[in-house]
Amino acid sequence: MNYMSVFLEQIKFIKEIDKLKYIQRKTKLFSSDRCENDAEHSWHLAMMTIVLAEHSNAKIDVLKVLKMVLIHDIVEIDSGDVFIFDSVKNHDNTVEELKAAKRIFGLLPDKQAKDLIALWLEFENGKTNEAKFAKAMDRFEPILQNISNEGGTWKEYNVPIDKVLSKTKPVENGSKLIWEYSKNEIEEAFKLF
Amino acid sequence: MNYMSVFLEQIKFIKEIDKLKYIQRKTKLFSSDRCENDAEHSWHLAMMTIVLAEHSNAKIDVLKVLKMVLIHDIVEIDSGDVFIFDSVKNHDNTVEELKAAKRIFGLLPDKQAKDLIALWLEFENGKTNEAKFAKAMDRFEPILQNISNEGGTWKEYNVPIDKVLSKTKPVENGSKLIWEYSKNEIEEAFKLF
Repeated sequence: MNYMSVFLEQIKFIKEIDKLKYIQRKTKLFSSDRCENDAEHSWHLAMMTIVLAEHSNAKIDVLKVLKMVLIHDIVEIDSGDVFIFDSVKNHDNTVEELKAAKRIFGLLPDKQAKDLIALWLEFENGKTNEAKFAKAMDRFEPILQNISNEGGTWKEYNVPIDKVLSKTKPVENGSKLIWEYSKNEIEEAFKLF
Repeated sequence: MNYMSVFLEQIKFIKEIDKLKYIQRKTKLFSSDRCENDAEHSWHLAMMTIVLAEHSNAKIDVLKVLKMVLIHDIVEIDSGDVFIFDSVKNHDNTVEELKAAKRIFGLLPDKQAKDLIALWLEFENGKTNEAKFAKAMDRFEPILQNISNEGGTWKEYNVPIDKVLSKTKPVENGSKLIWEYSKNEIEEAFKLF
């Protein structure tokens, strides 16, 4: 059979991204000892986007945000997960990640590769309303998870509350309501740890 | 603080659906012995939708298909994964699943609950263009996985090729191109098992 090369490139990409299921995050599942992987995390952010989009500060294109959160960690197949509180390695290790984006999205037909690399960069830059909301979701999930785990990675790595608050503050750029809730929950939780 | 009840209901739902990450499918990851879970599976279908939407037989609303594939297995938190080749339990165990849909989506504010239950039912009924394409993705992923695993669940459960072809044929309702490729790949693969 002679399938169009476009389709065969897409199949190659679909097989490659299966590896995201093996990339372990530091954060654990809700009320659990089991680490979350990047595929599960991306699915959860997508569900949160569907459910919480109405609380965005600005009007957003939900389809665009969904695509962003679904692809945002794919680069970690090559560059690995960088822990947000890592003091040695920069969380925004964009040189290594850009190389990964070019290799992995580059498996796709040209137009699709360019579109997804551009979308990933838009997320990384965090300037558009969609990127701000996507980043808010990315920070909000581990807040809920850590609180459900009596402090989770915050406690495990002795992260002080002011650092937790400064690292999670980007939630506010996406949703003032969700940030107000998050800040209050973090403050209440730290009283108990 | 006094947050709106709508938001607190949404948070409850977001926590509850974490359980999808524990629901194991029979199908294994690509070239792997490790079972896939429903959250990973749902993420992969969403990525396939983004990448393969252009091959749909009919024009589709991609946002709607994404929502469908992201939520389609959430009912399994209560009803469990039913193996497609199970000869005792019916794969479309809609009474149990509908009860699950009402309980889990019912955690959300009324309007959202109704919308997501309706979307899940639309997927289950498989009549609209979006449901046909979503179901095509749902059948296509395990085809690729089983072939990467030298037959995977087909071989493990001694499923004959005609049964594999009849169970995967719904791919054709979503995309004739993807079905033509799938059928050929299945036939070639069975020659080697």
